[in-house]
Amino acid sequence: MNSWNEKSNMTMLTDFYELTMSQAYYDQGMKDTIAYFDLFFRRVPDEGGYAIMAGLQQMISYLEELHFEEEDLAYLRATGQFSEEFLQCLANMDFRCDVWAVPEGTPIFEGEPIVKVRGPIIQAQMIETMLLLTINHQSLIATKSARIVYAAEGRPIMEFGARRAQGYDASVLGARAAYIGGVSGTSCSMAGLQFGIPVSGTMAHSFVQLYPTEYEAFMAYAKTYPDNAVLLVDTYNVLTSGVPNAIRVAKELLEPQGKRLKGIRIDSGDITYLSQESRRLLDEAGMQDCKITASSALDEYTIRDLMVQGAKVDAFGVGERLITSRSEPVFGGVYKLCGIEDAEGNVIPKMKISENIGKITNPGHKWVFRFLDRATGKAMADLIALDGEVIDTAQPYELFDPEATWKRKTLHNFEVMPLLQPIFLGGRRVYTCPSLEESRSYATRQMTTLWPSVTRLDRPHNYYVDLSQKLYDLKFGMLKDLN
Amino acid sequence: MNSWNEKSNMTMLTDFYELTMSQAYYDQGMKDTIAYFDLFFRRVPDEGGYAIMAGLQQMISYLEELHFEEEDLAYLRATGQFSEEFLQCLANMDFRCDVWAVPEGTPIFEGEPIVKVRGPIIQAQMIETMLLLTINHQSLIATKSARIVYAAEGRPIMEFGARRAQGYDASVLGARAAYIGGVSGTSCSMAGLQFGIPVSGTMAHSFVQLYPTEYEAFMAYAKTYPDNAVLLVDTYNVLTSGVPNAIRVAKELLEPQGKRLKGIRIDSGDITYLSQESRRLLDEAGMQDCKITASSALDEYTIRDLMVQGAKVDAFGVGERLITSRSEPVFGGVYKLCGIEDAEGNVIPKMKISENIGKITNPGHKWVFRFLDRATGKAMADLIALDGEVIDTAQPYELFDPEATWKRKTLHNFEVMPLLQPIFLGGRRVYTCPSLEESRSYATRQMTTLWPSVTRLDRPHNYYVDLSQKLYDLKFGMLKDLN
Repeated sequence: MNSWNEKSNMTMLTDFYELTMSQAYYDQGMKDTIAYFDLFFRRVPDEGGYAIMAGLQQMISYLEELHFEEEDLAYLRATGQFSEEFLQCLANMDFRCDVWAVPEGTPIFEGEPIVKVRGPIIQAQMIETMLLLTINHQSLIATKSARIVYAAEGRPIMEFGARRAQGYDASVLGARAAYIGGVSGTSCSMAGLQFGIPVSGTMAHSFVQLYPTEYEAFMAYAKTYPDNAVLLVDTYNVLTSGVPNAIRVAKELLEPQGKRLKGIRIDSGDITYLSQESRRLLDEAGMQDCKITASSALDEYTIRDLMVQGAKVDAFGVGERLITSRSEPVFGGVYKLCGIEDAEGNVIPKMKISENIGKITNPGHKWVFRFLDRATGKAMADLIALDGEVIDTAQPYELFDPEATWKRKTLHNFEVMPLLQPIFLGGRRVYTCPSLEESRSYATRQMTTLWPSVTRLDRPHNYYVDLSQKLYDLKFGMLKDLN
Repeated sequence: MNSWNEKSNMTMLTDFYELTMSQAYYDQGMKDTIAYFDLFFRRVPDEGGYAIMAGLQQMISYLEELHFEEEDLAYLRATGQFSEEFLQCLANMDFRCDVWAVPEGTPIFEGEPIVKVRGPIIQAQMIETMLLLTINHQSLIATKSARIVYAAEGRPIMEFGARRAQGYDASVLGARAAYIGGVSGTSCSMAGLQFGIPVSGTMAHSFVQLYPTEYEAFMAYAKTYPDNAVLLVDTYNVLTSGVPNAIRVAKELLEPQGKRLKGIRIDSGDITYLSQESRRLLDEAGMQDCKITASSALDEYTIRDLMVQGAKVDAFGVGERLITSRSEPVFGGVYKLCGIEDAEGNVIPKMKISENIGKITNPGHKWVFRFLDRATGKAMADLIALDGEVIDTAQPYELFDPEATWKRKTLHNFEVMPLLQPIFLGGRRVYTCPSLEESRSYATRQMTTLWPSVTRLDRPHNYYVDLSQKLYDLKFGMLKDLN
């Protein structure tokens, strides 16, 4: 399966300036200049403490398919902006970049490269739009999903948002990303078909309305799904009509067959009160095993409040606020030049300066390492270091805050996990994607490496992403030279 | 062209409950029950006064392609939730619905049906997800686009958001919707290729960084694009480096060839100040025709403020805040059952009640009419009326507010425009989509029918969407009967 993105050649899904810049590089005889780009983000959405990497599989599919078709070239030719030689160069393009990336499901932090590209400038530049689009979108949704799953304290979350997603693959790939982030399933049949995500569905209000009475609607549904009925109880009145009718159907139709009503769903009103009272009515009817699902404009904040108030909810359906990450619908990944190679293959570091020190990029060919405490297994810090630097895990390692260098911390008894894995080398894929299930369980395990101070929803502690001394010296040396 | 959505069969992009409900209808012998659904929204995003309809063309493509393939049926079979007879019924499905919709580019308002479906319940129910997804997404972006275009007071807006869109078709179809809403072009090459939207692009910071100096970068670009160069002037310092280098390139390279520098782009910093000072420098250099583009986290609010402050900007590039409608990323369209037909073809009206009077749906088979003032051409009100009602334009017509019935207003000298056009009748398409250009100019013309009180960004007046007396009597009669 997993063919969603493989259907289409997305090569033309690139900003037009990637192509005009490339034409200029071509004219300057620079098309084979080797450039290094880092993809990173500057701020976790929702002021959270971490993000979750997602979208790598679709990024890989895109890069494997990268080529211009006749129709694309004809279109570009018709714009009048490109020379015939350059178009020929695009037609013959053979992807030769090296690409490294953080595996899907890994917690990621501000400022560290999560994808890294080395290759001929024309190719490395042109893929910017799709790399950002893919990683920004899926990491946004995976991160939101992880927050919502966290708030529900072990109760399953169903992703219900297809109808409010921002387009077709926002619904399908959004469901995929949400699954990596920890939701238990989706309402989106296409996501089930394409990615094997568990799907489920019950009934809409229209089903109840279509019958003369709620009781008849419930009977009809339970006859078709005696083992599996979740009845929507809020079309008329949850406590005086919906739950009593659900109990009646259980008693009259299901229990005589030795079956149990699987659940009810409440989609409006005061979920805390309605779930508590529904639970009481169900329990009084001997239906302690009948589950209550709630699904009304929920996100991590409302779910947390419901939990605090003692709502009797066993599972949550979450729609638009997950599939669009409504409270913060943008994941601000950027793709920045960090170096070029000279004719001898030496890396000439490059950086983007800014009046805001936090927006100055990190120059050079770099790697990212996570320090894990051997005693607790917890992540202590990430370090960005220059190519060639070795971290000796037998020695203490001193970290310092790059914006406040007097803040220093010495780590002992740690392991080091390199975050960036090789994905393409010389344009050939060298990475095998784990299955979606594997990425999801990896994400769940990885979340346990984060301290609660990092995973809490509000005002988390800043996780350390520090620079090695060498990288710090390079960066601030370059800054000094500019002035 | 226009093939974006035609590539894929989206039939499985449906919520799973649409299918389980259908199985239950099938089991009850109700699969051919004729149902009526209204698609409408309850609140304009951003507390605006109007929305812009978009997405109809993709909705039509979806419905024309509607069919289950072997792979889909095999997947559904494997879920164990469907009978073989029902799956056979899906396999043989022949679309037979009637569909009416408001043309793309039309201003639309809260509570009025913008799409209306009549057909066999299984079919009419199953298409809910895709109809909502398509219309919600594109209307969201078209509406945001119209607001941004309005704020720019005639200055062109370029859509720049592909890298931050929520998925691939969010970028391409988002650019399409933004174009209907009035932007002048897009950076997204795929949107140019697929929909003929004008594309443009200049250079990224990486282009400037790649060269030893900004001057060399500008020279390189201007050599390739002497007629068409827009130079990005904020990589180092706009006023001390970027603009002086741009002027130098104009003087040294372009003007000796009889050419002019087309423009500069400012992507960071205080746009008001930087644009004013850049304008002064350019003017002093005799470059009054060199345009200034600004593009830094812009939306309708920042653009309005820049205009008020006298920023000297000729064109705006707008990214994530348009392509995701960041300030409000959800368009809350819903799809509600409003009637079924009995064996004789009589419509039995249905409504969804709620404790919130604004959320009670309007029952029955209905149409929507716009009253236009013959003297001014302005839209005065919309009216939702039951099928068969005739509005005599030769007589005054009395409207009343359905939530405050003492508020009454008599209209004179009006024309009536029916909003819902037939799109499919008996499952066959009867509507020819205008070209995208036509939809865009239609939207522009339609905007002129709205009073400024409705189009302003903040605290607009409520446009009237009223019910006919007959519909009002039906609705409140049904409500009374429920109690």
